[in-house]
Amino acid sequence: MYKLIELQTGICSAQGFFADGISAGLKAKSAKDMAFIYSEKECEIASVFTTNKMTAAPIRHFRAKGDFKTNFVLINAKNANAMTGKEGIEDIETILKTLPKEVINPVMSSTGVIGVRLPQEKIIQGAKLFDLSKKEPNAAASAIMTTDSFSKQKAFKVELEDGSSFSLGAMAKGAGMINPAMATMLCFITTDADISNVEMQEILNEVTITTFNAASVDGDTSTNDTVMLLSNRVSGAYDRAGFKDALKQIMLFLAREMVRDGEGATKLVTYKVTGAISDAAAEVVAKSLSNSLLVKTALYGEDPNWGRIASTVGASGVEANEETLSISFNDLCVYDTGKLLFDEKMEEMASKIMQLDSFSISCDLGLGEGKFTSFGCDLGYEYVKINADYRT
Amino acid sequence: MYKLIELQTGICSAQGFFADGISAGLKAKSAKDMAFIYSEKECEIASVFTTNKMTAAPIRHFRAKGDFKTNFVLINAKNANAMTGKEGIEDIETILKTLPKEVINPVMSSTGVIGVRLPQEKIIQGAKLFDLSKKEPNAAASAIMTTDSFSKQKAFKVELEDGSSFSLGAMAKGAGMINPAMATMLCFITTDADISNVEMQEILNEVTITTFNAASVDGDTSTNDTVMLLSNRVSGAYDRAGFKDALKQIMLFLAREMVRDGEGATKLVTYKVTGAISDAAAEVVAKSLSNSLLVKTALYGEDPNWGRIASTVGASGVEANEETLSISFNDLCVYDTGKLLFDEKMEEMASKIMQLDSFSISCDLGLGEGKFTSFGCDLGYEYVKINADYRT
Repeated sequence: MYKLIELQTGICSAQGFFADGISAGLKAKSAKDMAFIYSEKECEIASVFTTNKMTAAPIRHFRAKGDFKTNFVLINAKNANAMTGKEGIEDIETILKTLPKEVINPVMSSTGVIGVRLPQEKIIQGAKLFDLSKKEPNAAASAIMTTDSFSKQKAFKVELEDGSSFSLGAMAKGAGMINPAMATMLCFITTDADISNVEMQEILNEVTITTFNAASVDGDTSTNDTVMLLSNRVSGAYDRAGFKDALKQIMLFLAREMVRDGEGATKLVTYKVTGAISDAAAEVVAKSLSNSLLVKTALYGEDPNWGRIASTVGASGVEANEETLSISFNDLCVYDTGKLLFDEKMEEMASKIMQLDSFSISCDLGLGEGKFTSFGCDLGYEYVKINADYRT
Repeated sequence: MYKLIELQTGICSAQGFFADGISAGLKAKSAKDMAFIYSEKECEIASVFTTNKMTAAPIRHFRAKGDFKTNFVLINAKNANAMTGKEGIEDIETILKTLPKEVINPVMSSTGVIGVRLPQEKIIQGAKLFDLSKKEPNAAASAIMTTDSFSKQKAFKVELEDGSSFSLGAMAKGAGMINPAMATMLCFITTDADISNVEMQEILNEVTITTFNAASVDGDTSTNDTVMLLSNRVSGAYDRAGFKDALKQIMLFLAREMVRDGEGATKLVTYKVTGAISDAAAEVVAKSLSNSLLVKTALYGEDPNWGRIASTVGASGVEANEETLSISFNDLCVYDTGKLLFDEKMEEMASKIMQLDSFSISCDLGLGEGKFTSFGCDLGYEYVKINADYRT
């Protein structure tokens, strides 16, 4: 047995981890734009990266290192170092060579515009401002933001029955999702749990499916998406169930926060799909719903247009039919296995639900036991505004 | 050999076809909202329907008839008769029974809101206003519009060397595509060519792939999408090559017109994908590009953000890599097999191309011979406005 206690110390919650954010002049107006994560003791690493074939240079650099430990992650905003070829890798190597001697096997993580070389000199000068003894989780979390409108952090202490404990702390950026935008999704999680990289990777893979991979802002998958989990093992304590529970709560919270902060989003919607012929089929439906432009614009208009939801279920390609389908907004069933229930009174009730900041849309396909829950947001004028001219 | 001569008589271009549009009070302000297509002689039929599993009642009604000939199509706007179960089919049967005695095996086609029963009485009264001797292609083409901002018609006469000839005439609606919206795509084509339904279906299937199926406004597939091709064979003339050429020109024109009239669209963009490992892979990339929100909003912003194009190619799931990829706007190559060419001067040139109403984006994947061309449009504030509150 274990107990989870929430902490407010973000990425610095686990023992022996330091972090800070500084301004290197990449963003305008001296905003913080570079962050580091440092551990005195080397860390084991688990990671999940984008499936985009145009993988950004920092991810290719990371992968080329094979099996390794590190004690330092350098993160920059404003430039993704993607589509930058060999030069992109060379820029990383040049930058990382200038880091202080305490740093072992450093890695880099980048987010921002694609197809522009890193401003090497600015980043090198910026890194000289890092003070490795700082524990400034808020500054680090702010520095990695791009189009985010708020920073995203979460941390738990896991207390075990024998009195020992370990902690997990995280920060993330992204106003898009592992299906995201130029608004690459980055998430860093540090822990002092005494866990190996192999076990950590296994748990990370499992938890990713129902958290980051269940969330979508716009259905685009960036070149830079990264989830990185670092353990320095210094607590000497570990419990698999407690670790997994804390990790899941952290990742679920951060995934939902990213969607809630989706570019221009005003609503966070949970799509609960049940009754599909398989979990995989349910996942296809849930993601089709969270990615449908017609559903997303109806959400923005607070229009309980359940017909579009039915049409999107039908268009998703999985087995479905109108005779067994049911659709609900929160607990209000608006369409029940072929019966048209929708009248003026129900429309009024449904409209009220849609005015909430957060609600659920449930689709039961009535065919089997398959289920999947995804998260999405609406699409309004702000999304267009943010994305129509991102680079300038 | 044959010669194509463009006609201006739309759906009434082929001998023996009549059509008109009237107002039955479905749309506001006495706008035309019901149309018919009538042929004295019964017609053979070829058709392509939506792949949406929530198939609308008119399509289920059509399919249930099996092999048949017809001389009458009744079309209504404002109500899709979708998600209306058995009652939806019964409504069609009730309505069609009231048609005049000249009508043989009539079928119905609907577009509009999903999940509301047809206003049966209005449609029956509306049909009484039809005059089967009318040839009013413009009125028919206007009546079937929903969110369309202009009507869409095209017709050709095919003259053969022996002096004989036949014609094809078409009308379509849709500001979405066979990947469309509540803005269902409907297309009706009439011909007096002496062609059997089997041969007609074969040619229609082939031509659909590179025309309607290559176009997308928003990646959603409606419950009602329909392409219906009717031949009354009264010309006694036929030539396969001439027929196919005319049909392809008609369908390509109408598909491009639909995208150009995409909800809120300001630009028509042709995505030419080459060098993929297969035609199927090229198709995936071409459709990913035409459906990407990030690409569509960049188009709207006239922002030559080629990095988003590269990222979308990479995210599409097909084999691709930055070392062999090239990207051009019209003839301006902005990224060449790993080389960053983009500078201020090129940005200025690319921006000018993006200000055009119509231009092409070419992606050569540099891996094989696979190619596919798709059509798409931008996504701006108007799309959100049109779709945020469609029903009211």
